[in-house]
Amino acid sequence: MSDRKGTLYVVSAPSGTGKDTVVRELLRLHPETAFSVSATTRAPREGETEGKDYYFVTRERFAEMIERGEFLEYAEYTTASYGTPAAAVDAALAAGRDMILVIEINGANNVKRKRPDAVLVFLVPPSFEELERRLRGRGTETEEQIAARMEKARAEILHMDEYDYIVKNDTVPHAVSDIESIMAAERLKAAKCIESVKGGLGI
Amino acid sequence: MSDRKGTLYVVSAPSGTGKDTVVRELLRLHPETAFSVSATTRAPREGETEGKDYYFVTRERFAEMIERGEFLEYAEYTTASYGTPAAAVDAALAAGRDMILVIEINGANNVKRKRPDAVLVFLVPPSFEELERRLRGRGTETEEQIAARMEKARAEILHMDEYDYIVKNDTVPHAVSDIESIMAAERLKAAKCIESVKGGLGI
Repeated sequence: MSDRKGTLYVVSAPSGTGKDTVVRELLRLHPETAFSVSATTRAPREGETEGKDYYFVTRERFAEMIERGEFLEYAEYTTASYGTPAAAVDAALAAGRDMILVIEINGANNVKRKRPDAVLVFLVPPSFEELERRLRGRGTETEEQIAARMEKARAEILHMDEYDYIVKNDTVPHAVSDIESIMAAERLKAAKCIESVKGGLGI
Repeated sequence: MSDRKGTLYVVSAPSGTGKDTVVRELLRLHPETAFSVSATTRAPREGETEGKDYYFVTRERFAEMIERGEFLEYAEYTTASYGTPAAAVDAALAAGRDMILVIEINGANNVKRKRPDAVLVFLVPPSFEELERRLRGRGTETEEQIAARMEKARAEILHMDEYDYIVKNDTVPHAVSDIESIMAAERLKAAKCIESVKGGLGI
């Protein structure tokens, strides 16, 4: 147990904004930061590792986890379900590690309700034109799918006022640096560091 | 007028912690940040410039400024009085500039009451031993004065829970970097940047 509890960071963004790239780079630079691994009912894809990318579980096990209240948040789709196991999050925080959780906007609100101390970060693209360019650049989607994603992005972005911080992902280093500042500042909040400061001063 | 209002930062610390050195270095690195110049009734010391170090005013003018409510906070001592003129602070913030105000702990509470958006930063020495060493190193005070300052520091430090952030001044670059993180994070707070983000996205 650390004398300092870790902070849970929730990162959300409209699809195509590049949140996975930003968070991967952040974790590379800060290996002391934990990453929340989701449980999912979908099958592993090539190169995915159990316990690193996802916990791959059966539909039955997933339903059981819901029933036992083991998820901080979860989402069920027709194709597969995804959930954040609460135990791993709480263990990391209790050990004094900060943890990053990358989830959809609805999930973020659920996490904030259950863990009011969580810090919510919303990544926005530099512009909708750039977002469309990035989605198109993937070359994996039809015009219809791109149009649907853009419409979804415009709806999702209206939720940014429910977040604590907004970071523009114009370049990955810039977005990473902004999130580093947020994490550094959060650690300096009196409410979070006062006990360890007092300890250091012997009072 | 900027589309973003500046933020008022109040920095306090027990005497000897090195707050003036830290803030001077911060302003050198960030000349876009404004520094709040106090009004005082004391005489200028050698090298001090009117309007840069202080506004030097008469006791009569100071009393008039109090009566007219021109101070954000002020303190009267037997030797001299000091006050923060509100107009300069509000002008800088309205122009979108962040402003730093270095004041005593009682003054900080008064500022927070009048400007609840102000961000309060408390600088602490790495240890009381180090603080005493620094006070002694000045070579300007008697043992009695040093003992009195140490007693005052121990009392003042108990107010750190009234501040938003606590920064340890173990080295000046480290303390400056921590305050830079705080200022960067504050600018990313959704409440502060959402309008300009929306503007950038054309929504």
